[in-house]
Amino acid sequence: MAEGDDDVPLILTWDDTNSGLLEEDENAAGNYDVVNNVVIPTPGAPDPRAQNSLRQSWEMNYQEAAIYLQEGENNDKFFTHPRNAQALSAYLFAHNHLFYVMELLTAVLLMLLSLSEAPAVPFLRLDVYVHASLELLALATVAFELCMKLRWLGFHTFIRHKRTMVKASVLFIQFIEAIVVLVRQTSHLRVTRALRPIFLVDCRYCGAVRRNLRQIFQSLPPFIDILLLLLFFMVIFAILGFCLFSANTADPYFSTLENSIVSLFVLVTTANFPDVMMPAYSKNRWSCIFFIVYLSIELYFIMNLLLAVVFDTFNGVEKMKFKSLLLHKRSAVEHAFQLLVGRQRPDGVCLKQFDGLMRFYRPRMTARDRFLTFKALNRSGASMLSLQDFYKLYEVIGLKWKARRSGEHWFDDLPRTAFLILKGINLLVKSKAFQYAMYLVVAINGIWILVETNMLNDGVAWTHVVPWSYIIFLTIYGVEVLLKITGLGPLKYFSSGWNLFDFSVTVFAFLGLIALAFDMEPFYFIVVLRPFQLLRLFKIKQRYRNVLDTMFELFPRMASLGLTLIIFYYSFAIVGMEFFADVVYPNCCNTSTVADSYRQINVTIGNRTILDEGYYYLNNFNNILSSFVTLFELTVVNNWYITMEGVTSQTTHWSRLYFMTFYIVTMVVMTIIVAFILDAFVFRMNYSRKNREPLDDPEDEKGIVFETEVSQTEALQTLDLYKHTLGVTNLSSLQDMCVALERSGHSSLVFLGRRSRTKSDLSMKMYEEEIQEWYEEYSRTNLQPDETSHRELDSPEVSAANSIN
Amino acid sequence: MAEGDDDVPLILTWDDTNSGLLEEDENAAGNYDVVNNVVIPTPGAPDPRAQNSLRQSWEMNYQEAAIYLQEGENNDKFFTHPRNAQALSAYLFAHNHLFYVMELLTAVLLMLLSLSEAPAVPFLRLDVYVHASLELLALATVAFELCMKLRWLGFHTFIRHKRTMVKASVLFIQFIEAIVVLVRQTSHLRVTRALRPIFLVDCRYCGAVRRNLRQIFQSLPPFIDILLLLLFFMVIFAILGFCLFSANTADPYFSTLENSIVSLFVLVTTANFPDVMMPAYSKNRWSCIFFIVYLSIELYFIMNLLLAVVFDTFNGVEKMKFKSLLLHKRSAVEHAFQLLVGRQRPDGVCLKQFDGLMRFYRPRMTARDRFLTFKALNRSGASMLSLQDFYKLYEVIGLKWKARRSGEHWFDDLPRTAFLILKGINLLVKSKAFQYAMYLVVAINGIWILVETNMLNDGVAWTHVVPWSYIIFLTIYGVEVLLKITGLGPLKYFSSGWNLFDFSVTVFAFLGLIALAFDMEPFYFIVVLRPFQLLRLFKIKQRYRNVLDTMFELFPRMASLGLTLIIFYYSFAIVGMEFFADVVYPNCCNTSTVADSYRQINVTIGNRTILDEGYYYLNNFNNILSSFVTLFELTVVNNWYITMEGVTSQTTHWSRLYFMTFYIVTMVVMTIIVAFILDAFVFRMNYSRKNREPLDDPEDEKGIVFETEVSQTEALQTLDLYKHTLGVTNLSSLQDMCVALERSGHSSLVFLGRRSRTKSDLSMKMYEEEIQEWYEEYSRTNLQPDETSHRELDSPEVSAANSIN
Repeated sequence: MAEGDDDVPLILTWDDTNSGLLEEDENAAGNYDVVNNVVIPTPGAPDPRAQNSLRQSWEMNYQEAAIYLQEGENNDKFFTHPRNAQALSAYLFAHNHLFYVMELLTAVLLMLLSLSEAPAVPFLRLDVYVHASLELLALATVAFELCMKLRWLGFHTFIRHKRTMVKASVLFIQFIEAIVVLVRQTSHLRVTRALRPIFLVDCRYCGAVRRNLRQIFQSLPPFIDILLLLLFFMVIFAILGFCLFSANTADPYFSTLENSIVSLFVLVTTANFPDVMMPAYSKNRWSCIFFIVYLSIELYFIMNLLLAVVFDTFNGVEKMKFKSLLLHKRSAVEHAFQLLVGRQRPDGVCLKQFDGLMRFYRPRMTARDRFLTFKALNRSGASMLSLQDFYKLYEVIGLKWKARRSGEHWFDDLPRTAFLILKGINLLVKSKAFQYAMYLVVAINGIWILVETNMLNDGVAWTHVVPWSYIIFLTIYGVEVLLKITGLGPLKYFSSGWNLFDFSVTVFAFLGLIALAFDMEPFYFIVVLRPFQLLRLFKIKQRYRNVLDTMFELFPRMASLGLTLIIFYYSFAIVGMEFFADVVYPNCCNTSTVADSYRQINVTIGNRTILDEGYYYLNNFNNILSSFVTLFELTVVNNWYITMEGVTSQTTHWSRLYFMTFYIVTMVVMTIIVAFILDAFVFRMNYSRKNREPLDDPEDEKGIVFETEVSQTEALQTLDLYKHTLGVTNLSSLQDMCVALERSGHSSLVFLGRRSRTKSDLSMKMYEEEIQEWYEEYSRTNLQPDETSHRELDSPEVSAANSIN
Repeated sequence: MAEGDDDVPLILTWDDTNSGLLEEDENAAGNYDVVNNVVIPTPGAPDPRAQNSLRQSWEMNYQEAAIYLQEGENNDKFFTHPRNAQALSAYLFAHNHLFYVMELLTAVLLMLLSLSEAPAVPFLRLDVYVHASLELLALATVAFELCMKLRWLGFHTFIRHKRTMVKASVLFIQFIEAIVVLVRQTSHLRVTRALRPIFLVDCRYCGAVRRNLRQIFQSLPPFIDILLLLLFFMVIFAILGFCLFSANTADPYFSTLENSIVSLFVLVTTANFPDVMMPAYSKNRWSCIFFIVYLSIELYFIMNLLLAVVFDTFNGVEKMKFKSLLLHKRSAVEHAFQLLVGRQRPDGVCLKQFDGLMRFYRPRMTARDRFLTFKALNRSGASMLSLQDFYKLYEVIGLKWKARRSGEHWFDDLPRTAFLILKGINLLVKSKAFQYAMYLVVAINGIWILVETNMLNDGVAWTHVVPWSYIIFLTIYGVEVLLKITGLGPLKYFSSGWNLFDFSVTVFAFLGLIALAFDMEPFYFIVVLRPFQLLRLFKIKQRYRNVLDTMFELFPRMASLGLTLIIFYYSFAIVGMEFFADVVYPNCCNTSTVADSYRQINVTIGNRTILDEGYYYLNNFNNILSSFVTLFELTVVNNWYITMEGVTSQTTHWSRLYFMTFYIVTMVVMTIIVAFILDAFVFRMNYSRKNREPLDDPEDEKGIVFETEVSQTEALQTLDLYKHTLGVTNLSSLQDMCVALERSGHSSLVFLGRRSRTKSDLSMKMYEEEIQEWYEEYSRTNLQPDETSHRELDSPEVSAANSIN
């Protein structure tokens, strides 16, 4: 195992490493030069100084390999790889979670500032000098981050990195504007605030958002083509409509060509549908043909075509993205591999090197897990990892290792009586009868709630009494939770998402009961969540389980798409606030066609005076929160033209451009969201069909599982190796393993490494054959792995080509 | 070629054929019995009576084989195959275009009757006795058709044929009701009229609609599952919403649980969106979260899920349908083949038999085409068709044959001067420059129209003057059409869809000009079609050509989907008319929440009195045409709740069920239409990617092309064979071929058979590998081809299994 002890790395990293970073004494530095000129120290005659320098050069290699792996994981292009020791320190500074969090917080702070700037949310208003100072502070932090990046990338690469350059110029503008605001003590028209999300998008943690944006831009060209077709038909029909209906003076929708076009634009969104037809229809019943033909072409054909084209492009882009990521990772693994092999054995990485890499790459991993990961990679059983083994690195890196339990229950070690009782409970909660009894209870509860709510039609009485039915059902659920926790053991219970859901709903219901009992007004909303108990019923049917499981699998991706949408919202909200703040108010738009929706008048009916409100003045851009709600309403599309016409009547008719642009942008994003959901589901279904694998594995069988058997001698040897050769100090995990091995009485112990299955795993299986082709193509078009090891591969051009490929 | 002359068919068809159909004399009948007991007449000693009976038994076989092929083509199950001569005559009676047209006309007449029945379209109203008599007449015709079917199928099969049984019972009910109407001289509540489309669906010509309906029903189970999920969340949120908002008396949307549910149902369709939120939002701004969460779950997640699930099911169903159709056809071909081979050579079909078959199967085909089709099938060059050759029958059957032209232009035979001129024109119209010049003209025309229309904002002046620009552009288009027709030749010109489009637009424009010039008011609408010229611009870009081409390929399928939708509309329209005719009228709904939309009052503004109309009373069910328009509005969904609430306020609140059911039904159909368009486009794109075939073949290269070379000797031999042995009388086509061969001076002539490419051809190529598997599986699970020939395969069970497989 220790054969790699005094081997020399095949490649030496950061040639000018002796100046800085590691505080080496003169001698070591001198010695290092010798090593660098490939003087292999004679084995068996260890010169302590050479040993020391050798160890240091190995450490350097571990670190660089870890950086390569990280770059592979993050899909960072290799041409941003740090080139020297100074760059390395900047790189290390800019690549840790503290820095990332700072980056994120600054960006979020900048975005949140719009809550307190000029058209501020009332209770968050800040003085100009306060928010401008905060902004300057945040911008200074961003500038500092950029400086670190500059130091790490070097000026040349920095200039060539487009995203960073955009960020720098936006930063510059914002800086100047913030200073202007501070000097003038008042906000001017600051549309550039709409660019603030760029700082957020550039955050390390927002990689998914960046990918979404890229995907959106890649889907744009075909989208725009079809959009043009849509607009083209719109114009043709607008001309037609103008010719046909403009003679009718009772028809405001087609009175001018501009009105025609706007009416038909709104008609594509169906928001004004029967209304736009009615004046013409009341004159001549056959005029409905115009509208039916228009809607059939535009709404039912071209809009679907849009979805089809985007869906198709999306499919292709998704696959290309997977391919490029896969090949990039492969290339990263190759780079790392070449840094880990020694001159004596250039085909393999032994445990010592692997462990060294892992200490840099995953500093939190225990020695035991590093060892087990090595074993998991090392399928051949040889003492070293070949490149082929090493390729699998990314697959095993996230595994959580656990010894396989000898018994199956958590209470196996308890005394006999307790064991029997718990065994009984275990059998009970696992029985079908118990499950269906619970479903029945939930169903009865559901019907009960429905009937009860229906009878409480006065709508007031329900809040202040605790209904007895509530207590009974809650008791049943409480008992169920307790039984399950004792029967399955807390660990197993909480490892299932469904149980977690049950648990939290029950706990919330208890909190609601307490709130009711102690009459705590603000927590009443918890009581209202009772009906969510009913969701448990959906466990019964297979298809729902699939759908909900897929939903959870998709959740991260959906969240990032949601965030992308919010970023678009933010930009539009800023622009909206700058131009339309405070333009609509009750009774504002009496000259427009939508006056009714903004009217607020007192009406006397009989002897009561009531306020007759068209509430649309609430849909305004008066502060960022209102703007978000207004934009959401515009996204839902229905009646959006009322908001548009209201604002337009108070400003110019160019305002319509804002609303129409927003509609088109959300249409793009929404179409992509639909395409994404379609793609994800169809992919899942195809996957399960192709692999003849039922989607309903028992819950604990899910995910990726690796098995590794460790014998007692092996364990002791490893412990020894770690203790004496590697000089690792924290070995408690390894010692625990040895103790466990001894206690179990078996000569070996099986460890299971688990992680949840990702889309990438599914894709790997789906595209199995194609992946082989890609690999072959990759090794054909690129240099051979042997050659990739050499430095020339790191030249920006080749690396970029690799990662784009 | 004539070797099969006096061979005996391997199988003899319709054992009891001697009683009826063919008027055979006693002797022939006697002789036939002998043949039936497989007494092979000795070759070389032709007994005229045996010869005669032999020919007749062959004729019978040809006919049965043709019927098998027809059944394969129409996807008729083989258990409905006529079993005896009596059934055969009924079958032949019921399977020709005259009968089909009668079937169709009767069904259409029945459906059209609703135009003139009780709530009739004003100008089409008929007296009760007139339309009731018409109905009885139509129903009697349907009954007659059913009798023919009974005679052909036999009582046993008839009973087991579900569709026919449903039709029969509907017929029975309609009959009784029609008589009741006639006796009472007034229409009663006749909801059963909603079942009339069944007669249409059962028509031979409406096979596509039947398939669509089947596909819709097959997609239903997963659809319903997700729909339940949707409704479930709706109920949960309704309870929540009721608890949260019912305290607000200004909020009519959540005042009772029923209102809550209805409001949230309408909210899923977004039709009441910001309005439903506004009362709660004006009280508490955070209440928007309830609506945002609800819409995100229901509209953006579950509705998309619905599409995904339907799309996935649709994909699967589409493939299974293709497979079952393919195997059914294969089995039909096998049946036919076995009937065509003789005892002496049981492995092949020779020209004589093939020709016999074709005379029954495609009576209109000329002798030359029959011969060429045989040659096209006969790839091996042997004198007979093997079963493998014969399998391709359906691929070649629709080919249109033409001799390959020696020259490429239609004017090659003209005198030199004319040739040169025409050649010049030909080169001109084919040149890129000419094309782009025309695009430029169209673009200028488009801009011109836009500018002109924009300047004519008074909207009256445009009708009575012929603008000079119109004349100029029209002249250019006219010249272009003339040049193209002379340059390409009329045949080639009109064979392109795009040219046809150009031509018709230009002709329409001319007609419009004439209408303008002679001041013919009713034809002004033609002038208005001018902007459609602009569509020609879409030829420029590749993607648009693809989209439009795909659109045309999809058109038949789209039309059948549209017809399916219309059938649903019809049923709903009838029900709507029976229950809601004349319930809404101006100012009808003053007690409801949508009173404004139905109000019609005179308003005085300044010194003008204008009529302020909420036009929604026009969206009624007063006659079938109005109902259709109303239902279309409901399909478009926007503001549909206004119609619903209007009708509900005038009737009971159970009326909402009608509208909600309609929404769900159209949602199903619309989702399937979307899934269909998605599927078709994605399929096309995948196809062109997979086959690396550009979608933009030059126009004349499109479709399926078969080539067949015919030598002079072969042609003469065939002519001889036809003349002497087959006794076919109409040989002009073959003689023409011989003459053409002689005139051309070559020893052989190449004939090209063309047909347009169908989806089935694409599928054949896409599923190439899978098709082989299906065939293997088919021949494994079924009897071997040799055995299939025997009668036992025709037992209903096996045939049904075949065709379902």
